[in-house]
Amino acid sequence: MSNTYGKAFKITTFGESHGPGIGVVIDGCPSGLAIDLDHIQTELDRRKPGQSKLTTQRKEPDAFQVLSGIFEGKSTGTPIALFIPNENQKSQDYSHIAHTFRPSHADFTYQEKYGIRDYRGGGRSSARETAARVAAGAIAKQILASQGIRIEAFVSQVGTIKLQKEIKDLDFSLTETNPVRCPDPETAEKMAQRIDEIRLERDTIGGIVSCICFGVPVGLGEPVFDKLHAELGKAMLSINAAKGFQIGSGFQSVGMKGSAHNDSFYTENGVVKTRTNHSGGIQGGISNGQEITFDVVFKPVATIMQDQESIDDEGNAAIVSGKGRHDPCVLPRAVPIVDAMAALVLVDFWLRNRLVKI
Amino acid sequence: MSNTYGKAFKITTFGESHGPGIGVVIDGCPSGLAIDLDHIQTELDRRKPGQSKLTTQRKEPDAFQVLSGIFEGKSTGTPIALFIPNENQKSQDYSHIAHTFRPSHADFTYQEKYGIRDYRGGGRSSARETAARVAAGAIAKQILASQGIRIEAFVSQVGTIKLQKEIKDLDFSLTETNPVRCPDPETAEKMAQRIDEIRLERDTIGGIVSCICFGVPVGLGEPVFDKLHAELGKAMLSINAAKGFQIGSGFQSVGMKGSAHNDSFYTENGVVKTRTNHSGGIQGGISNGQEITFDVVFKPVATIMQDQESIDDEGNAAIVSGKGRHDPCVLPRAVPIVDAMAALVLVDFWLRNRLVKI
Amino acid sequence: MSNTYGKAFKITTFGESHGPGIGVVIDGCPSGLAIDLDHIQTELDRRKPGQSKLTTQRKEPDAFQVLSGIFEGKSTGTPIALFIPNENQKSQDYSHIAHTFRPSHADFTYQEKYGIRDYRGGGRSSARETAARVAAGAIAKQILASQGIRIEAFVSQVGTIKLQKEIKDLDFSLTETNPVRCPDPETAEKMAQRIDEIRLERDTIGGIVSCICFGVPVGLGEPVFDKLHAELGKAMLSINAAKGFQIGSGFQSVGMKGSAHNDSFYTENGVVKTRTNHSGGIQGGISNGQEITFDVVFKPVATIMQDQESIDDEGNAAIVSGKGRHDPCVLPRAVPIVDAMAALVLVDFWLRNRLVKI
Amino acid sequence: MSNTYGKAFKITTFGESHGPGIGVVIDGCPSGLAIDLDHIQTELDRRKPGQSKLTTQRKEPDAFQVLSGIFEGKSTGTPIALFIPNENQKSQDYSHIAHTFRPSHADFTYQEKYGIRDYRGGGRSSARETAARVAAGAIAKQILASQGIRIEAFVSQVGTIKLQKEIKDLDFSLTETNPVRCPDPETAEKMAQRIDEIRLERDTIGGIVSCICFGVPVGLGEPVFDKLHAELGKAMLSINAAKGFQIGSGFQSVGMKGSAHNDSFYTENGVVKTRTNHSGGIQGGISNGQEITFDVVFKPVATIMQDQESIDDEGNAAIVSGKGRHDPCVLPRAVPIVDAMAALVLVDFWLRNRLVKI
Repeated sequence: MSNTYGKAFKITTFGESHGPGIGVVIDGCPSGLAIDLDHIQTELDRRKPGQSKLTTQRKEPDAFQVLSGIFEGKSTGTPIALFIPNENQKSQDYSHIAHTFRPSHADFTYQEKYGIRDYRGGGRSSARETAARVAAGAIAKQILASQGIRIEAFVSQVGTIKLQKEIKDLDFSLTETNPVRCPDPETAEKMAQRIDEIRLERDTIGGIVSCICFGVPVGLGEPVFDKLHAELGKAMLSINAAKGFQIGSGFQSVGMKGSAHNDSFYTENGVVKTRTNHSGGIQGGISNGQEITFDVVFKPVATIMQDQESIDDEGNAAIVSGKGRHDPCVLPRAVPIVDAMAALVLVDFWLRNRLVKI
Repeated sequence: MSNTYGKAFKITTFGESHGPGIGVVIDGCPSGLAIDLDHIQTELDRRKPGQSKLTTQRKEPDAFQVLSGIFEGKSTGTPIALFIPNENQKSQDYSHIAHTFRPSHADFTYQEKYGIRDYRGGGRSSARETAARVAAGAIAKQILASQGIRIEAFVSQVGTIKLQKEIKDLDFSLTETNPVRCPDPETAEKMAQRIDEIRLERDTIGGIVSCICFGVPVGLGEPVFDKLHAELGKAMLSINAAKGFQIGSGFQSVGMKGSAHNDSFYTENGVVKTRTNHSGGIQGGISNGQEITFDVVFKPVATIMQDQESIDDEGNAAIVSGKGRHDPCVLPRAVPIVDAMAALVLVDFWLRNRLVKI
Repeated sequence: MSNTYGKAFKITTFGESHGPGIGVVIDGCPSGLAIDLDHIQTELDRRKPGQSKLTTQRKEPDAFQVLSGIFEGKSTGTPIALFIPNENQKSQDYSHIAHTFRPSHADFTYQEKYGIRDYRGGGRSSARETAARVAAGAIAKQILASQGIRIEAFVSQVGTIKLQKEIKDLDFSLTETNPVRCPDPETAEKMAQRIDEIRLERDTIGGIVSCICFGVPVGLGEPVFDKLHAELGKAMLSINAAKGFQIGSGFQSVGMKGSAHNDSFYTENGVVKTRTNHSGGIQGGISNGQEITFDVVFKPVATIMQDQESIDDEGNAAIVSGKGRHDPCVLPRAVPIVDAMAALVLVDFWLRNRLVKI
Repeated sequence: MSNTYGKAFKITTFGESHGPGIGVVIDGCPSGLAIDLDHIQTELDRRKPGQSKLTTQRKEPDAFQVLSGIFEGKSTGTPIALFIPNENQKSQDYSHIAHTFRPSHADFTYQEKYGIRDYRGGGRSSARETAARVAAGAIAKQILASQGIRIEAFVSQVGTIKLQKEIKDLDFSLTETNPVRCPDPETAEKMAQRIDEIRLERDTIGGIVSCICFGVPVGLGEPVFDKLHAELGKAMLSINAAKGFQIGSGFQSVGMKGSAHNDSFYTENGVVKTRTNHSGGIQGGISNGQEITFDVVFKPVATIMQDQESIDDEGNAAIVSGKGRHDPCVLPRAVPIVDAMAALVLVDFWLRNRLVKI
């Protein structure tokens, strides 16, 4: 029972991979916001399957319907419900796992926890659920855009192929120009080749999505438990296949001394800045006005087109053979999910920050 | 406004570093639990300052008072309030930062967010707040112990000094036998030396706390947003100085293929197990019965005994000189905080799991 | 932002009177429950408009769709989303109130609070929203029925016409046999006549719905703020047109002495009972095993088929003329809403009570 | 587990009647509020026992301590913890109910729900818990006062003795001039006599507290479930001994027609007003700018100085004899609790209303 995210801008998602569809109810969107429906569709298109040979061949239009909350083009302050019908289900592809547990999937744990599961396409555990997050995230981004806040997520590593450039040398207008969603075309090409090799091996590969939030004002984040990076971490780790999260210097900080790690303050034209940004834009759980930078690592997709040892639901040994349509690498499609979740976190804290001072 | 953690076993902490004290209210502790008060004190003693030359020399007895919720040695189902008076404050040590912002501290962000801050010892942003978490975590551990769940946190890296042994080769009874809290005495000694060197340099250093949870039953964790590792991640990232979190293979997974990363199921004496545990004991956000393994990285402590460039609260350049009593390395004292937070997460999901089936 | 009700069995409703439809997402329905879809429809039919001349002539089939959460006839533990398309909107009936505020309606307050409102049929403030509650309540009732808990709501007063019989003399199988939903056919007939008279006067009238919950076990309700009767009160007062709530002796208690009001305990065949039930089945906010009895008063419907003085949205005096299709008395259709809300409250506490003991 | 109230201005109370004391943690008080500690004490003094012969003779100074959250006289945005030590416990007065259940008390239900109870003075179920609400309510009132919002609660009925004057004829400066807290001295005198008669009969009596909130701006209250009057209802019904709640016309509305009940809008000097106020200042769950008026009925106190039939915790018949120090009529001391809870509700919605518009 945790299909709701957010405290001020609350989203509740529902739906299964092979049921009637996927949906989201947004409770807490401020009234009076002009909603750009085309932008929502654009965001959904970024996430949808079948975009290139690097991603699953399931073809879903992911066209959404507005069920409530928008009147004459504007939010009314009442719940906004969006629904994305499923259309291209091939449930028969999944009959083989009705009684067998795929390794490193949620089949076993759902079955044990609930005593029942909709096995078709992974049911609720399918990454298809994230379409609802992307739709809600699009509205969150529209609010943030009105405040000058911009989020740039991109693939920074696939397997061992790393984007080596510094943030200041990246041109984010290039991220969407290649199927990998890496803002450096040369690295993107290498990543694409690597993914395609892996695909031909009938295997899968992981990687890292990095994210930078520009224009975040000072003051977002709520100590002590809802620190901004703690909430970002939770949001990212709630995405399917995410295995780790780091803010700013992250795991690199382990080899640094305090004297090198500390970000000195200075003032430039009356604006407080820091000379370095190892903090990743957050100090004491609260944004400090610098760019927020974080990374999310995604494991290799669990579904591989190979036979694997496993067990059935009676505990007998069984072979699971890869079927269905799956991504050899989740990274390209993870980018719009990461930025959607970042937007949902930021808009939530942006609203909550209205409560702080008398 | 986020001083509450948990949904079923809810803790609300309060208090500042140099105010009357630190406290916690636990709402949702089941009734009928025999509470071992000595164990709570033992846990507080593990976190308290002044334990060795590796930690701050502030001397706090951290003796706690029970204000409510326990009757004749047992929990009654009503809120349990615990209070830890502050005794060894030296607030004058902090007058120099009343109007100056320490680099990489929360001084600036608190001031900007709230328009006011209790600067003495960092006020609410002080790691002293975690004493309340440790006290509550001790009760959580008592519940978990009754269910056969055991948590082992330990320092696995300080600077570049890494614990190299595998989990199965570690003897956790040794963790508390050295001031670093590393279960391998030889590595612990190297870490201690390194910390002492850094202390003499008037600098600080970071590291990694690893944590293993034994005996966690299948089924804990609530998809889709409150996945077990997402909540563990949030809990850990809410600890002062934490910069990153990974579950199971974590950032290592980036270089692995799916065929190598997947954890095959098999059955042993009727119990479902996996041949590897790259999942870190969690699949689809739900515990799978294997050991839960995760890591938390802590940055070098921001307070260093050196002069640093900064600004005052009017934006003028200022020098901040290290004063007060501080840890050269937060890691040894972070161990009891990590395991306390892990216990709070697990007990919360253990209770929530009671709601799942009809 | 409060379209969610419940803490363990959480419902989130959405939708407007003249938008695409009305829906509800249930998060927290235990898995493994066989869901009777026909029963849900039966409950919706009890609430739907156009049932008799005593109610509005809007004709809505109120046929619902299952969007998620049910697999092979059973709940899976994932969110259950139900959607009821609107079909018989006559939005042109409402153009006259696009810029005018109906007296004692929500037009003015929504406009002021949100700066925008969907005026068609009252938008979100329409009692049509309660269809979603009734659908969710039907599932709650199915759970309660499995536990031997039964809820009987009925009209006990219309204007000055009161049902005079005691609970023990009522035959609840008769409630649904008359359009008023009073279990005493003779009184029901008088009430129906009274409502019809009022209808012909182009006016409206209020009344009282009483409710009795049988079979509620000891222990439901959570002190101190979520006392069972406090939560029942909130749930009932959240229904459109409700103006008051009383538990057990309620406002009658004011004239009684403690010695007469107290409910003496005794034991009968090992079961604890009380000789009277002025407590209405709840003591200290917790059910005591006796029947839970409460009353809800509903004001006369605000929409009357008469001209009324009011203002427009620029503050000018204006005449509002009754149009559209409305109920002369909300009571008969309030009955299924009252029992749905009672079911939602009880099932929520029934689940929460699983958390109480170690 | 429901010791927290409020969503933006959250209070968590703890403590038992005969434990170390009673406390409250306020999470969400905006920063920068000058806190008047004397006013908090004044409010506590209004609620404290032993004020006159009309109330219990337990003598508690109810002096409170600030444990956190206030720095240099102002709120800092961190949790404000207040603690009121118990001093005048006479726990031995309660040994007779260690194994016996007092009629219409919470002894039986707590024992059954939790399997254990602190029987001394009723433990957590004691009205002593409300001291914490009054302390928190005082801070809420200080915020409301800064916004021009004023709350006037008073006793309007004791037994059959009713205050007959209309609101406009009442002088609220007189409420605190008599021990009953009725703003009409003549009626107050009659009520006091009645209470004293009842006291001499060793019996108890109930009554009604009415409350009027002046200066509430348009827009407070959150549809659909957290309607302002629904939340007020819950807050009031959570007070010990409360049996009913009505808003505006309340139960009187049952005999009215819509044409008489509707509150016509008009404009006076550019301000929207209504000619009548049967709505009690709330329409569609949102404040409309008129005075908010409601009533709460309290049953006669359950503890009477007479022998009563009951059972012990083994189900055997037992006689409960009234002992301890109790109020013959809870009404006078209920007044400050009602206005404290009203303040907590209003301040919570006042804050939440900041989230509504873009």
